[in-house]
Amino acid sequence: MNKKKIINDPVYGFISIPSGFIFDLIQHPYFQRLRYIKQVSMTHLVYPGALHTRFQHALGAMHLMALAIETLRGKDVAISDEEEEAVLAAILLHDIGHGPFSHSLEHTLVEGVSHEWLSTLMMDELNEAVGGRLDLAIMIFNNRHQKKFLYQLVSGQLDIDRMDYLSRDSFFTGVAEGVISFDRIIKMLHVVDNELVIEQKGIYSVEKFLIARRLMYWQVYLHKTVLSAEQMLLKILQRAKALYENGVSLFASPSLEHFLRNKITRQNFTEDVSHLAHFSRLDDTDIWSAVKTWAYHDDHILRMLCSRLIARSLYHTELHGAVPEEQLIADLKSQAVDYFGIDTAEADYYVWVQSIENSAYEPNNSTIKILMKDGSIQDIAEASDLSNLETLSKKVQKFAVSFPKELVGIPSSIG
Amino acid sequence: MNKKKIINDPVYGFISIPSGFIFDLIQHPYFQRLRYIKQVSMTHLVYPGALHTRFQHALGAMHLMALAIETLRGKDVAISDEEEEAVLAAILLHDIGHGPFSHSLEHTLVEGVSHEWLSTLMMDELNEAVGGRLDLAIMIFNNRHQKKFLYQLVSGQLDIDRMDYLSRDSFFTGVAEGVISFDRIIKMLHVVDNELVIEQKGIYSVEKFLIARRLMYWQVYLHKTVLSAEQMLLKILQRAKALYENGVSLFASPSLEHFLRNKITRQNFTEDVSHLAHFSRLDDTDIWSAVKTWAYHDDHILRMLCSRLIARSLYHTELHGAVPEEQLIADLKSQAVDYFGIDTAEADYYVWVQSIENSAYEPNNSTIKILMKDGSIQDIAEASDLSNLETLSKKVQKFAVSFPKELVGIPSSIG
Amino acid sequence: MNKKKIINDPVYGFISIPSGFIFDLIQHPYFQRLRYIKQVSMTHLVYPGALHTRFQHALGAMHLMALAIETLRGKDVAISDEEEEAVLAAILLHDIGHGPFSHSLEHTLVEGVSHEWLSTLMMDELNEAVGGRLDLAIMIFNNRHQKKFLYQLVSGQLDIDRMDYLSRDSFFTGVAEGVISFDRIIKMLHVVDNELVIEQKGIYSVEKFLIARRLMYWQVYLHKTVLSAEQMLLKILQRAKALYENGVSLFASPSLEHFLRNKITRQNFTEDVSHLAHFSRLDDTDIWSAVKTWAYHDDHILRMLCSRLIARSLYHTELHGAVPEEQLIADLKSQAVDYFGIDTAEADYYVWVQSIENSAYEPNNSTIKILMKDGSIQDIAEASDLSNLETLSKKVQKFAVSFPKELVGIPSSIG
Amino acid sequence: MNKKKIINDPVYGFISIPSGFIFDLIQHPYFQRLRYIKQVSMTHLVYPGALHTRFQHALGAMHLMALAIETLRGKDVAISDEEEEAVLAAILLHDIGHGPFSHSLEHTLVEGVSHEWLSTLMMDELNEAVGGRLDLAIMIFNNRHQKKFLYQLVSGQLDIDRMDYLSRDSFFTGVAEGVISFDRIIKMLHVVDNELVIEQKGIYSVEKFLIARRLMYWQVYLHKTVLSAEQMLLKILQRAKALYENGVSLFASPSLEHFLRNKITRQNFTEDVSHLAHFSRLDDTDIWSAVKTWAYHDDHILRMLCSRLIARSLYHTELHGAVPEEQLIADLKSQAVDYFGIDTAEADYYVWVQSIENSAYEPNNSTIKILMKDGSIQDIAEASDLSNLETLSKKVQKFAVSFPKELVGIPSSIG
Repeated sequence: MNKKKIINDPVYGFISIPSGFIFDLIQHPYFQRLRYIKQVSMTHLVYPGALHTRFQHALGAMHLMALAIETLRGKDVAISDEEEEAVLAAILLHDIGHGPFSHSLEHTLVEGVSHEWLSTLMMDELNEAVGGRLDLAIMIFNNRHQKKFLYQLVSGQLDIDRMDYLSRDSFFTGVAEGVISFDRIIKMLHVVDNELVIEQKGIYSVEKFLIARRLMYWQVYLHKTVLSAEQMLLKILQRAKALYENGVSLFASPSLEHFLRNKITRQNFTEDVSHLAHFSRLDDTDIWSAVKTWAYHDDHILRMLCSRLIARSLYHTELHGAVPEEQLIADLKSQAVDYFGIDTAEADYYVWVQSIENSAYEPNNSTIKILMKDGSIQDIAEASDLSNLETLSKKVQKFAVSFPKELVGIPSSIG
Repeated sequence: MNKKKIINDPVYGFISIPSGFIFDLIQHPYFQRLRYIKQVSMTHLVYPGALHTRFQHALGAMHLMALAIETLRGKDVAISDEEEEAVLAAILLHDIGHGPFSHSLEHTLVEGVSHEWLSTLMMDELNEAVGGRLDLAIMIFNNRHQKKFLYQLVSGQLDIDRMDYLSRDSFFTGVAEGVISFDRIIKMLHVVDNELVIEQKGIYSVEKFLIARRLMYWQVYLHKTVLSAEQMLLKILQRAKALYENGVSLFASPSLEHFLRNKITRQNFTEDVSHLAHFSRLDDTDIWSAVKTWAYHDDHILRMLCSRLIARSLYHTELHGAVPEEQLIADLKSQAVDYFGIDTAEADYYVWVQSIENSAYEPNNSTIKILMKDGSIQDIAEASDLSNLETLSKKVQKFAVSFPKELVGIPSSIG
Repeated sequence: MNKKKIINDPVYGFISIPSGFIFDLIQHPYFQRLRYIKQVSMTHLVYPGALHTRFQHALGAMHLMALAIETLRGKDVAISDEEEEAVLAAILLHDIGHGPFSHSLEHTLVEGVSHEWLSTLMMDELNEAVGGRLDLAIMIFNNRHQKKFLYQLVSGQLDIDRMDYLSRDSFFTGVAEGVISFDRIIKMLHVVDNELVIEQKGIYSVEKFLIARRLMYWQVYLHKTVLSAEQMLLKILQRAKALYENGVSLFASPSLEHFLRNKITRQNFTEDVSHLAHFSRLDDTDIWSAVKTWAYHDDHILRMLCSRLIARSLYHTELHGAVPEEQLIADLKSQAVDYFGIDTAEADYYVWVQSIENSAYEPNNSTIKILMKDGSIQDIAEASDLSNLETLSKKVQKFAVSFPKELVGIPSSIG
Repeated sequence: MNKKKIINDPVYGFISIPSGFIFDLIQHPYFQRLRYIKQVSMTHLVYPGALHTRFQHALGAMHLMALAIETLRGKDVAISDEEEEAVLAAILLHDIGHGPFSHSLEHTLVEGVSHEWLSTLMMDELNEAVGGRLDLAIMIFNNRHQKKFLYQLVSGQLDIDRMDYLSRDSFFTGVAEGVISFDRIIKMLHVVDNELVIEQKGIYSVEKFLIARRLMYWQVYLHKTVLSAEQMLLKILQRAKALYENGVSLFASPSLEHFLRNKITRQNFTEDVSHLAHFSRLDDTDIWSAVKTWAYHDDHILRMLCSRLIARSLYHTELHGAVPEEQLIADLKSQAVDYFGIDTAEADYYVWVQSIENSAYEPNNSTIKILMKDGSIQDIAEASDLSNLETLSKKVQKFAVSFPKELVGIPSSIG
């Protein structure tokens, strides 16, 4: 049976499924689940088009990876057919461990267990099911394969993952500032001494990539209203877990209830496959149908947060350039206690501070290397005449203070 | 407070919210609910990008309506400010009554109650809340306002609704065949004798519109796999209701349970507001989180349908140009009984026939009128030298026969 | 030296030059000349963006050809490396013989010598220069290579030439009606029994292609104003040649003068290479700088036509569905004589009729063949449920009557 | 007669001609001439799509200006109908004084006369013809109208001119790095204290604009190959003028000959209208048809430069970060003398240095002002957390050394 397929993708036009093996991975319920996990969580409350999912992102990244492989082979970089399949599988599965609402709930639903760790766990499971055919993909994913550049394509300063998500998030939000020349960057990829490099002609495209990433952070990923909505969702889940701890039952799908009721650790996941089974049944719809129902629950905090969130009546959020003074937060909380008639202990659900940070380029992790026309290798920061690349690598830290709109303008509040 | 807002839209760039009144309508929970109702139901199983919602469609249609009003006024068609607000509100709310998965479940969840009827009911409710300010919008929506052309902009052969959904569905599916020149069509709109007409120069854009619509039907709306998935979802809901009738309880959000457990008629809706309250809390996520849970239910039919749907293991579907012979369906059913060891009474969940039809242009309802350069009015079918417009208005009927993949190739089956 | 190059193209993003040999062909002065020959002649007077050239078109077509080859090879159609180079060269050079303003002046500047004949002549010259390396390309171009499908890719009902020019003309005119899904059509190409076919799944894209072609004809290629401008240019050249015949000298570049002063036949071209040398130095700029200068010439007809053309004061043009009555033309001419005080013999420069025709699909030449899912081959007209494909293949003939605007509205004129 | 027209534009879709008066300006031969002056001169030798003209740019800028006016009026900035027409006319005509190949030949064909000066001269002429209706437009153009912000829209750090040319040049070159969010910037425009400002929400779009401008400079406007071609053209014109001075006649259209033969000063232009008449008949085609003919001239330098340029056999160009050492240039020249057997005096046609510079943001001229949410006004450099805006305002100067390819690699050469 011909499993060769073409999938329409609004961003790239068409995506080819390269082989039956890859097709089978896509068909697996673990992967199909990603159809219901939005790539950028609650961002659609600000940019209504941003409903795209991890499923689309994974396919898109696989598509770009295939282009990268083709380019590198065209420049006589040795990549075997086995390695090609492996790196395609690695990028396809790199986000398989994401739970509902991606990063927003990452350490809430399952505390202390990162999505990368779960990705590895799920890949291992899949690998068993396919008799070890994912061995090499997993090695590449974990940077244990000798050809380091394959790992760098999956995860690095200028990796295929970022190229797809910037392109895709920009496309679906409609924020033109995030548009990058992914096709040009890919055509400029090369490998020198086992490391991924960019040919000098591509330097402007790389600069644009770094700047686009920074602009997307401030305009989309760290947009005040998005932060507010995501933090409200997180507080809702925290409240729900607290209620379960106190013996209160809530409407929830069985798998969601599993994680609300129990505290599941990495060790639990390793020892008992049922936890992963439950996790693999969760997606955004479990959370959202619960939130809608909880908007009518007896608990006044849960009810308040949920009813506000579904009516898009979001907390007011202000960005500060430095740690907000403790007194400010204390004042806001005491106002919340007064205004809403709540207990002091409950004020954390009304007023909170989030630290957010962003640097477009993180030279400490790994650097973007430019292959100069004379054959030498330079760091992008040296090679560019845009000396402000230093600035791009400077970490910008901000603090988001959130509280109900009703407190804006109350005397002595900051609103 | 300035409620003037700009919303990013991937299709049109920016959409301006024209007034505080419109902004408040958008903020209403009835309207926010549309954020979670996909425009084209299960189409995303074939075109992964097609996750756009009724929320985006309504905003987009409002945007195009604003452009149309601007064009018509530029041609000295009298439209008062009140009428402008009304027609914008009318198009914004025209789909407000859609339930989960739009058309797919339209007559399943609430039998015998169309989404148009529910739209009117919800508009009436909203109208009460705003002290009658929606009076004129409702009159236009129901074609009771004297300026008939305003109604035709909302609902007609070449209305703003269609212009947005073709553009939007084409954009998010990535099916370029559906692209239309909405901007050109709108610029060619005019009004003669109280009727909407198209200036002769726009005739090719109208032809393209009709053809694009036809191509979208066959490539997207009536795509075999989409039909299969949507019908499976419908069968699931039918089964769930049947189980409730037999006293079996299922996991469901309270509002979903309300409609599974009770048969709600138009009269019920009119007499008791709680039904509409429940309806207004439903969206796609209630259905999907239920389907996922039901995949582990005791009932073998519900379990089978749900587990297949979530694993995208869809029924095989074949299109026939004529009514399939009764013997063919009977044979398939008896094979299903044999193969799956089910009761004959259950075979309707395994084998079914759907009648589907499409005509791109329906001259019986209303015609597209062309304003010729000499000032006369002609029907598009006369004005075009594409004599095949007659063909476009011919109803094409097909029959989709669906059954589990396992039956394909079984002797005497049609697979 | 690395001659592998990437060229930015607004339509496709990037075009790769596949080899040093192709690069050298592009660098040849014959090919560079195409930079100054607009693809669609005077169309830019109506669609100001349409300044794109035969140079861009040839590169674009080569790009699409490379995609087609890749697709066919992926389906195990045997195409040798030599054949690949040859078919790329053939499409690259297919328009090399076009003179200034492409089709508009095709049989005016050099009477009785088609651009195809000149293309072959120039290819033969180039072939000599490269020691016969173009042998196979020329065989394919002239349909003398056994693999007929390669010829069909260069020239047929659904060839690469058309795919590029529709896409490109649509892009640069901004006429969205001409957008086609070239990528989808190409992905659906296959070869059966040495003939190019389209897989059934691509049938809607083919329909769209045929309809887009028809719409482009009426909206662009046969646009009244474009026809008017092109015919005026043609009349200008005719007048200039007539003046030369009468011993009047005009400002002209030496190579332009060569063709104004002498009547060059095919035989002349074959016998004396200097004619081709002169031809290969001509482009749009020779004509245009002459027209601008002639606007101040003593000859009142040349002056009138040229000054009107450069001021975009174009003749009024009306389309008729049938041959216009002789009396009508006679009347117009006699009005011209009266109004402008010209000789009767000169009236042909004031009033003229052009016959224009178009059929989107010409089944007599060759048919578009569809590879059905059951393996059979059907003609598109049978395979499509759009029975109006018959209509598309019907030749539509119209007659354009042109005359100066001053005559519009004069009693007994048709204006 | 209805002169309201819509023009297709590939960049913006449609451009409306706002009034009959504007339509008449567009129809004027001065303006129609811009159809034949490429916006970016010889850039199409590197980016083949870049054939767009000053005509398209002027129309596009007028379109954006209309959007800006609409936005500002929506924010209650007072702009009368007369001012609207004037600022539309001002932007439409702002480049009317450009000669063939725009900037490339600006001070060559007519020494010491800038295109701005000629624009004013031509506007004055037009103004006379329309009985003073352009009075206000000319006042705005020259910053003599009290509403300074109207001038700033025409000419400033973030003016409509730049917005169109960045968008347009990016579009036609296919260099995605130059894409800006012109629609967002325009929607963020406001006026405070008679000065144009940008609302704080638009700050990222402004940053993107500045960076896009910088990238376009290095990737397009100052591309080595483009510089090389443009400088060759300039040298050709210098040589042609030198030959005329020595009594040698060349093929040239009468108007081109006028400027080759005579040295026309500002004073001449003012005193004798025939000079402007000749100037207004010149466009790119006069130059190019001459260059092609001169490739066969007796003068070996003119012949050499012209034949290289038309064959795209361009000089090798190298960028230096500092003034190249005099010895280097002297060495190159003496090699040229040896290699080509030329006179020392002729070496300037073989080896030259160009100084080029660029700063994306020039705070000395005028600053981009941001309207903060608290109502205060800040300079973009303060308001942005991208401290490297300082870097963007740093002037980067480079030196382009050009010489024939034959000298590359000759011992002691730098090539």
